[in-house]
Amino acid sequence: MYGLHQGTHHFNSFDQVQSLPAILQKNNIRTGIIGKKHVGPSPVYPFDFAATEENNSIMQVGRNITRMRQLARSFLTQKDDRPFFLYIGFHDPHRCGHTNPEFGAFCEKFGNGEAGMGRIPDWTPIHYDPDDVEVPYFVPDTPAARMDIANQYTTISRLDQGIGVMMQELEISGHLEDTLVMFTSDNGIPFPLGRTNLGEAGTREPFLMSSPDHRQTWKQESASLISTLDIVPTVLDWFNITPPIYTLNKHQVTYTGHSLLPSLEGTTDSPVFSSQSLHEITMYYPMRTIRTKQYRLIKNINYKMPFPIDQDFYLSPTFQNILDRERNHQDQHWIKTLSQYYYRPSYELYDLETDPKELKNLVGDAKYSDIFKGLNDQLNDWQNATADPWICSPVGVLEDAGAYKQHPVCMPLLNHL
Amino acid sequence: MYGLHQGTHHFNSFDQVQSLPAILQKNNIRTGIIGKKHVGPSPVYPFDFAATEENNSIMQVGRNITRMRQLARSFLTQKDDRPFFLYIGFHDPHRCGHTNPEFGAFCEKFGNGEAGMGRIPDWTPIHYDPDDVEVPYFVPDTPAARMDIANQYTTISRLDQGIGVMMQELEISGHLEDTLVMFTSDNGIPFPLGRTNLGEAGTREPFLMSSPDHRQTWKQESASLISTLDIVPTVLDWFNITPPIYTLNKHQVTYTGHSLLPSLEGTTDSPVFSSQSLHEITMYYPMRTIRTKQYRLIKNINYKMPFPIDQDFYLSPTFQNILDRERNHQDQHWIKTLSQYYYRPSYELYDLETDPKELKNLVGDAKYSDIFKGLNDQLNDWQNATADPWICSPVGVLEDAGAYKQHPVCMPLLNHL
Ligand SMILES: [Ca+2]
Ligand SMILES: [Ca+2]
Ligand SMILES: [Mg+2]
Ligand SMILES: [Mg+2]
Repeated sequence: MYGLHQGTHHFNSFDQVQSLPAILQKNNIRTGIIGKKHVGPSPVYPFDFAATEENNSIMQVGRNITRMRQLARSFLTQKDDRPFFLYIGFHDPHRCGHTNPEFGAFCEKFGNGEAGMGRIPDWTPIHYDPDDVEVPYFVPDTPAARMDIANQYTTISRLDQGIGVMMQELEISGHLEDTLVMFTSDNGIPFPLGRTNLGEAGTREPFLMSSPDHRQTWKQESASLISTLDIVPTVLDWFNITPPIYTLNKHQVTYTGHSLLPSLEGTTDSPVFSSQSLHEITMYYPMRTIRTKQYRLIKNINYKMPFPIDQDFYLSPTFQNILDRERNHQDQHWIKTLSQYYYRPSYELYDLETDPKELKNLVGDAKYSDIFKGLNDQLNDWQNATADPWICSPVGVLEDAGAYKQHPVCMPLLNHL
Repeated sequence: MYGLHQGTHHFNSFDQVQSLPAILQKNNIRTGIIGKKHVGPSPVYPFDFAATEENNSIMQVGRNITRMRQLARSFLTQKDDRPFFLYIGFHDPHRCGHTNPEFGAFCEKFGNGEAGMGRIPDWTPIHYDPDDVEVPYFVPDTPAARMDIANQYTTISRLDQGIGVMMQELEISGHLEDTLVMFTSDNGIPFPLGRTNLGEAGTREPFLMSSPDHRQTWKQESASLISTLDIVPTVLDWFNITPPIYTLNKHQVTYTGHSLLPSLEGTTDSPVFSSQSLHEITMYYPMRTIRTKQYRLIKNINYKMPFPIDQDFYLSPTFQNILDRERNHQDQHWIKTLSQYYYRPSYELYDLETDPKELKNLVGDAKYSDIFKGLNDQLNDWQNATADPWICSPVGVLEDAGAYKQHPVCMPLLNHL
């Protein structure tokens, strides 16, 4: 997961990065983006067709599915013989209460036809009774959180209908039968232990893929572990493009993900990796994770400090209610205390077969010391392959210049961590 | 102090910043830079004449004072009637052992005429006996540190002679009598408690200013507190340029520094402020400081984690010797233990009149609670004036959008800090 590009946060990819749209452009693929972009700088992420927060209201291009339909139609019906790549960033899973409280915590009122809310013709809002919603195991089971979930479900009804709208546009343009379609999210829902966290609730996401060349796999479920790091290799594989070979900050760039097209034919046992360093500029909490079929290991680098809370999530009804209950010494009806949420150990190891909710940290249990070491070695190898600047943190300093240029090493700080 | 712009660290000013060279260019002043630049992106810091690490070897343009003389002459003798601004970034206070160990810890051998070292004609190296050097109070008094200091003094002899060379060039060009000259450093020496720290040893720097319009002040010492934040207002005042009025991330940009030209006529009692958030990208340790004539208050935001050590300083003979002594349980001959250096309190308050070495933290002493509050309020006001994203950290979250747009507030996290 990436730090925020917007405003004061100002996270930018290196200028030399060869991003997916840049590679596709170079290989004569027509590229488009509709909705949330949130990466930069602009020259690194070039699209032939763009309707994003950079040139539009994010509400219009990320939540108004009728406007998004029109944009998709414009792109798909352009007279152009080249193959196309279209990225659609629905904004609807996002909270909205910190910037646009007038539309509700998730902008669930935006375009619902009520007075002052406008109307999105392609959306029939679905409303949920807070008493009926299924509360995910990682969210407090409180009236405040149930209401919050019910409101998100209403915006998810808009996202859901938006997918249908886009599939219709694909059909209208004559591309339903020759297009690879992928649907996913890059992080968990904006609830505690979800977004900005790297446990199951923060990283386990829906992933649907439909390939016209693999009709026999339609409606099948795969047991393979896959990750958003697999998307670039998959798209390049689909278009039969050889990945570029180049260096960045003196390191050879390598994709640690794999094309998913072969895995449509079977399952793989490869582990997946996740990484988060900052969300907002003030939210420094680097974490690195490996997830295998049975285990998850999380490395929390800034673990002596409290887990950070973003401006967005802070104002959410769910988190405000957690704070209120903390102040009033009321039961949280949650799998964590607020203190446990804030203060995490340096390493967390979970056996997901026996403990899918990640409640029992196995670090320090002698029976799991070999498992821990094996996972930690693989995680370290991945940090090495991705030239992770935090590879030695927080117990050491990476030396990789001068005398250590050919053989980078972690050197100890003796800081008692 | 600013995070590193280079390589993987990648700190960049906002694209909308109106930097000093940009303002000067717009006002018809000819601009030049020789030596260390270390800021970006390039369009934000435009110079008409540039010889920096971006287009040269930093050794040649930052340490070879004969090459630097030639460059200064090229700039100063250009046929151009406009007034000029020339920034010269000597690299010589810097360590060099992590990238160029062949030249010594401070590149003190570079150009000294020994075999393989080349020769800098304008430099007569001065060598110091480690037994004779005066060890600053904040550095361990050990043979390793004495040798390290002696070597830095040799490179400082190059810097010192470099200043003389530049004054000669000013004279040769006929500008000695009509040029405002300022000499300073933006941070302390690369020894423990120096660079990357915000105490006296990290922020108290030489500052010399010579104005041909204020001859009566030559060779006088001023008791005013001044800061590098005063440089831009001073240069604009010198050229009689009105500071630009603009907004950045929705905040009005204001200079919190002041022109030093009036203070040449007298002294002021204004406090000065310092700020550091990261040095390398992995070195997150935001600190904010106010320094008055009598007191210094430091806010350490990430204080539960150890103070970070950079790749450069880590390999220094002084720090390696500190680690060796720690391993061997030997006396450090230092005002700190290594653990004290790493682990700092959330606030540090020192009475510099009675405790110039900052050994006795007065936070928690009831006699100083009003002093603490007064300083903390001023520090907070400065963070507010500079739109500091860390203004609420680490105990709260800043809310400044949506319902809080007109009246930003810090809201509590209840995280026990
Ligand atoms: Ca996201
Ligand atoms: Ca510096
Ligand atoms: Mg958001
Ligand atoms: Mg350096």
